[in-house]
Amino acid sequence: MPTVLFAAPARLWPNYQAPLAAAFTEAGLAVTMADAATPPEAVDYIIFAPGGPLRDFAPFTRARAVLSLWAGVERIVANPTLTQPLCRMVDPALTEGMVEWVAGHVLRYHLGMDTHILGQDGVWRGNVTPPLARERAVAILGLGALGSSCAAALAALNFRVTGWSRSPKSLPGVTCLHGAEGLRETLARAEILVTLLPNTPDTENILNAETLALLPRGARLINPGRGNLIDDAALLAALDAGQIGHATLDVFRTEPLPPDHPFWAHPNVTVTPHIAAETRPASAARVIAENIARDLAGLPLNHRVDRKRGY
Amino acid sequence: MPTVLFAAPARLWPNYQAPLAAAFTEAGLAVTMADAATPPEAVDYIIFAPGGPLRDFAPFTRARAVLSLWAGVERIVANPTLTQPLCRMVDPALTEGMVEWVAGHVLRYHLGMDTHILGQDGVWRGNVTPPLARERAVAILGLGALGSSCAAALAALNFRVTGWSRSPKSLPGVTCLHGAEGLRETLARAEILVTLLPNTPDTENILNAETLALLPRGARLINPGRGNLIDDAALLAALDAGQIGHATLDVFRTEPLPPDHPFWAHPNVTVTPHIAAETRPASAARVIAENIARDLAGLPLNHRVDRKRGY
Repeated sequence: MPTVLFAAPARLWPNYQAPLAAAFTEAGLAVTMADAATPPEAVDYIIFAPGGPLRDFAPFTRARAVLSLWAGVERIVANPTLTQPLCRMVDPALTEGMVEWVAGHVLRYHLGMDTHILGQDGVWRGNVTPPLARERAVAILGLGALGSSCAAALAALNFRVTGWSRSPKSLPGVTCLHGAEGLRETLARAEILVTLLPNTPDTENILNAETLALLPRGARLINPGRGNLIDDAALLAALDAGQIGHATLDVFRTEPLPPDHPFWAHPNVTVTPHIAAETRPASAARVIAENIARDLAGLPLNHRVDRKRGY
Repeated sequence: MPTVLFAAPARLWPNYQAPLAAAFTEAGLAVTMADAATPPEAVDYIIFAPGGPLRDFAPFTRARAVLSLWAGVERIVANPTLTQPLCRMVDPALTEGMVEWVAGHVLRYHLGMDTHILGQDGVWRGNVTPPLARERAVAILGLGALGSSCAAALAALNFRVTGWSRSPKSLPGVTCLHGAEGLRETLARAEILVTLLPNTPDTENILNAETLALLPRGARLINPGRGNLIDDAALLAALDAGQIGHATLDVFRTEPLPPDHPFWAHPNVTVTPHIAAETRPASAARVIAENIARDLAGLPLNHRVDRKRGY
């Protein structure tokens, strides 16, 4: 009977207690949840989210895996005490939510919706035939679980989709590019750019003055990935210069985004409060239970993080 | 060598001249375009849009078909001089544009985008997990070429889609209902309602005080179909009462919508200027050329209008 520690901010426990119990039962697992009296060396699996009391993984000498509640692991992966295998959350509900958010905002830009939502002034501006999706170039940086699902959904909506990833990938209906040269080519064709890269030293500030200048003039930017992907000052300069026509930003270096941050006031920026995709307790609990069951059955863990790459 | 008359407002001819010539060549047709000197009885096919000089179809004794440039034929079908077969436009580009517009606005309501587009006030409103598309009920009234394509696209985005039509239909992934009882059931479950019915005596004011009251409180309405489907006064009353949460209206009884119409000023209405879908000359010309080629080959005309139903 494995012992599982819920090492996340205490406020999350009420959301996860019942879904975890249900998921363990569903997976045929008899689990003991660790409590304050459980010594670290008795714990088999750690369910983890940053912001809770657990900082030092060293005493958990028996733990077979650390199972992240979140998709992003940048706040765990660099912890020098973490020697146990680390698994990212790949929650199907999170992916669904992300696909819906990305498809919605890409269509918003494609259709020029804001003109109408913000401009109910009684002036009939007809006779504008927008291009069809099959004439619209959308690019996605990052082709992991989230990026590739978004690319597939946008391709199904007829968009001309280019996807970029560090290493070569292949996706039906999507032009896949990779590496440094591929990044330049991807940016050069992106009328609408979606950033879904993990936060690693390699991707920090991947959108900077130099790379933003490679986009077609007036390109639209959608960032539901990570705040650190973008050099904020360079983006503001590109927006002021009209190089970037509009940006919808869901993630930021500091969250909540401070009320005096210039993104809030910029007429060509829409700030959304980190809502593009959220882990849902019911589906996340099932992912964790399945991974524990796999490990106990001698199967390799799903979604294991490569510590060198950082995701 | 058939003689074809372009009987539409003169301003459209420059848009259609080259596409029609190309489409006739592509279809292997040697066509003579009628000019001012051509007598009506020498015309074999009439390409028609309302607003041009042609009002009386009686002198066109040899004409084998009237081919509408537009999807909606309500301004032709009642013409008592029209005895020739009438065909609606079913333009694949128009369908694509409609699917994109409908998918975009459904996702806009689903995601609550307006809150962010209109509310960049520096207040971070996180901790709101919207339902997933698979938890969201969308209904479409009308399952013709446009409605069924929109239903399929929304089902592919995981929405719970109910489609309603006058007569029974079947579509994969869509709950299809029909008839008077089916309409009540469709409305009762529609968190987001899309109206894509043709304009006929049967559909006039199909959304009225009584039917709007059947929707769940706060339902969203999207009308890219026809202005006459909605009783404007009843909709305004339902919006004021909160029975309808928000409406996005693309078509109106009078277009352009007069600047003093209360829809423009209503805080819960977005007016768009009949842009949801437009016939594109290149693809429309191909549809017309194909239909003429079919008729000359002795095949039945595509998209022929049932004069009794009115579409």
